[in-house]
Amino acid sequence: MVEVKKYNVAVVGATGMVGQKMIDVLLERQFPINRLKLLASARSADKKLKVGSETYTVEEVSPQSFEGIDFAFFSAGGNLSKELVPEAVKRGAVVVDNSSAFRMEEDVPLVVPEVNPDAAGKHRGIIANPNCSTIQMVVALKPLHETAILKRVVAATYQAVSGAGKEAVEELKEQCRAYLAGKPVKTGLIPHKGAIRNYQLAFNLVPQLDIFVEEGYCKEEIKMIRETRKIMSLPGLPVTATTVRVPVINGHSIALNVELEQALSANEARALLEKSPGVLVADNPGKLEYPTPLEADGKDAVYVGRIRPDYSVEYGLNMWVVSDNIRKGAATNSIQIAELLI
Amino acid sequence: MVEVKKYNVAVVGATGMVGQKMIDVLLERQFPINRLKLLASARSADKKLKVGSETYTVEEVSPQSFEGIDFAFFSAGGNLSKELVPEAVKRGAVVVDNSSAFRMEEDVPLVVPEVNPDAAGKHRGIIANPNCSTIQMVVALKPLHETAILKRVVAATYQAVSGAGKEAVEELKEQCRAYLAGKPVKTGLIPHKGAIRNYQLAFNLVPQLDIFVEEGYCKEEIKMIRETRKIMSLPGLPVTATTVRVPVINGHSIALNVELEQALSANEARALLEKSPGVLVADNPGKLEYPTPLEADGKDAVYVGRIRPDYSVEYGLNMWVVSDNIRKGAATNSIQIAELLI
Repeated sequence: MVEVKKYNVAVVGATGMVGQKMIDVLLERQFPINRLKLLASARSADKKLKVGSETYTVEEVSPQSFEGIDFAFFSAGGNLSKELVPEAVKRGAVVVDNSSAFRMEEDVPLVVPEVNPDAAGKHRGIIANPNCSTIQMVVALKPLHETAILKRVVAATYQAVSGAGKEAVEELKEQCRAYLAGKPVKTGLIPHKGAIRNYQLAFNLVPQLDIFVEEGYCKEEIKMIRETRKIMSLPGLPVTATTVRVPVINGHSIALNVELEQALSANEARALLEKSPGVLVADNPGKLEYPTPLEADGKDAVYVGRIRPDYSVEYGLNMWVVSDNIRKGAATNSIQIAELLI
Repeated sequence: MVEVKKYNVAVVGATGMVGQKMIDVLLERQFPINRLKLLASARSADKKLKVGSETYTVEEVSPQSFEGIDFAFFSAGGNLSKELVPEAVKRGAVVVDNSSAFRMEEDVPLVVPEVNPDAAGKHRGIIANPNCSTIQMVVALKPLHETAILKRVVAATYQAVSGAGKEAVEELKEQCRAYLAGKPVKTGLIPHKGAIRNYQLAFNLVPQLDIFVEEGYCKEEIKMIRETRKIMSLPGLPVTATTVRVPVINGHSIALNVELEQALSANEARALLEKSPGVLVADNPGKLEYPTPLEADGKDAVYVGRIRPDYSVEYGLNMWVVSDNIRKGAATNSIQIAELLI
């Protein structure tokens, strides 16, 4: 008889969109859980959450919450991570952190299991889960790079409102209802909570994600550039990005333009992607088949379609990459990281 | 006393979205009209349309409709243009055609007044109005090219449903209502009428505009590539595009990545664009100011924002270009073309 080791697991931010999906994914993937602890900030403490057939009470997170915890999955914002991730590590937990707080720290691996699984082993207590749009981008880029070497990447994103949280999803729906009824539209959460100016997202586009940081770039764009380089161990890779919020509920999409060092036909790229882990190719123009966020919603794969040559450079390819930003972009990827360690 | 010459004007496709906007724009811009004739296919004939204070009856278009007409504005689809534009020309009319039927013909000028006004004078009866997303792209590219020479252009579009016509706008609204009410969503007009497969656009994205034509490209992408080269008289310009339909009612947006032959800072590009005809720069990250389709709706300008350096190439720039696809992308540009000739 084989004894399966089981772990004490904490989910921090358990009432949020990603936190709840983390719990779902832990169950779906039958993560070997001994004890499950659901944690959140004071605001959400004492809420009841149904997990499988049991009801859990969400506890207010504190340094002591992590006593005896083996794995802690954090998804409660950068500030809470900065404060409490070190406390969890101090108490012996391995933390998979979904915030951007530690991603670029040198001794923190930034891991996408299909791309750089080996990095996970080098952790010193913290492993960072990358930005959602970065994850789906590198899953699609990796097989192309292995065969033909990336020279330059130009990304334009089409990002769903679920990435801005539950309230933002409700705001979009309410805006659509109001707009269609000819009533005034209320704004407040886009481009981000607390912004000095808000935009309607219903039937509109907002070309800003997160705050503006430098030289006219918003933070999401900078994340896509820097995190891609770190995950792929290509510190000098030329990458640029324009990130745009679109009135889609769930599922991020990327129009991805790739320049390679070597020739790679669209058919070769398709064949490489088809056999890559975590990728599903949906690409048949003759049948009008390509990925859409609505079809990727609720799935774990990174969907790639519209693969075609780009003749504007020597070895260019265009493609369209879609994935569920709450699952593969956050929850599923976090759990997959922990699975690498057990 | 100055005698102003007045013209007999026909609008073909007068009941369509673009046709109706053409009539509005003719009045707004006080185009010197002697007699106005509203024409459409048999299906829409006998409809009444209010123009200013008068009511017009739409007539079924036929070759004889163009007797005595000076300017005919066509926006009733490629097939009708192919059949009747030559008939109008034969009868002495100058045709501004909004379909793609004649755009790439060598002796047909393809004109954006801010970019290549001189081409209009070389017409032999037909002047083509370019594709909507191409128009706004070249208006933004022209001033950059004049100063620093375009080397390569990578475009990803975010295109409103109004480009697919009135019924498609209604379909999107109805889909949103149904989706929000938890009812089944009806599809039928996206990616295009008569497609072998239809997609929901509400809260979704459809990375296909027009039919697929070659090597995995859809026709809208090919138009953006070829028409840009023709309008800018740069037959070898490296351009690539990914065109995507988004759940926006009106106003196309483009994430535009530009590689130049010479250095041009974001500030210099902004200054050039600010003084360019037809362009409005809306670009202040500190105030979260950038163009959105909702704000461009109903206006004639091409709005440019998010102008910033792209360090992934030697002389690169990223920008975000938004314009009303029914106005500047079709109706206004067509009328502006005729104004060049009077």
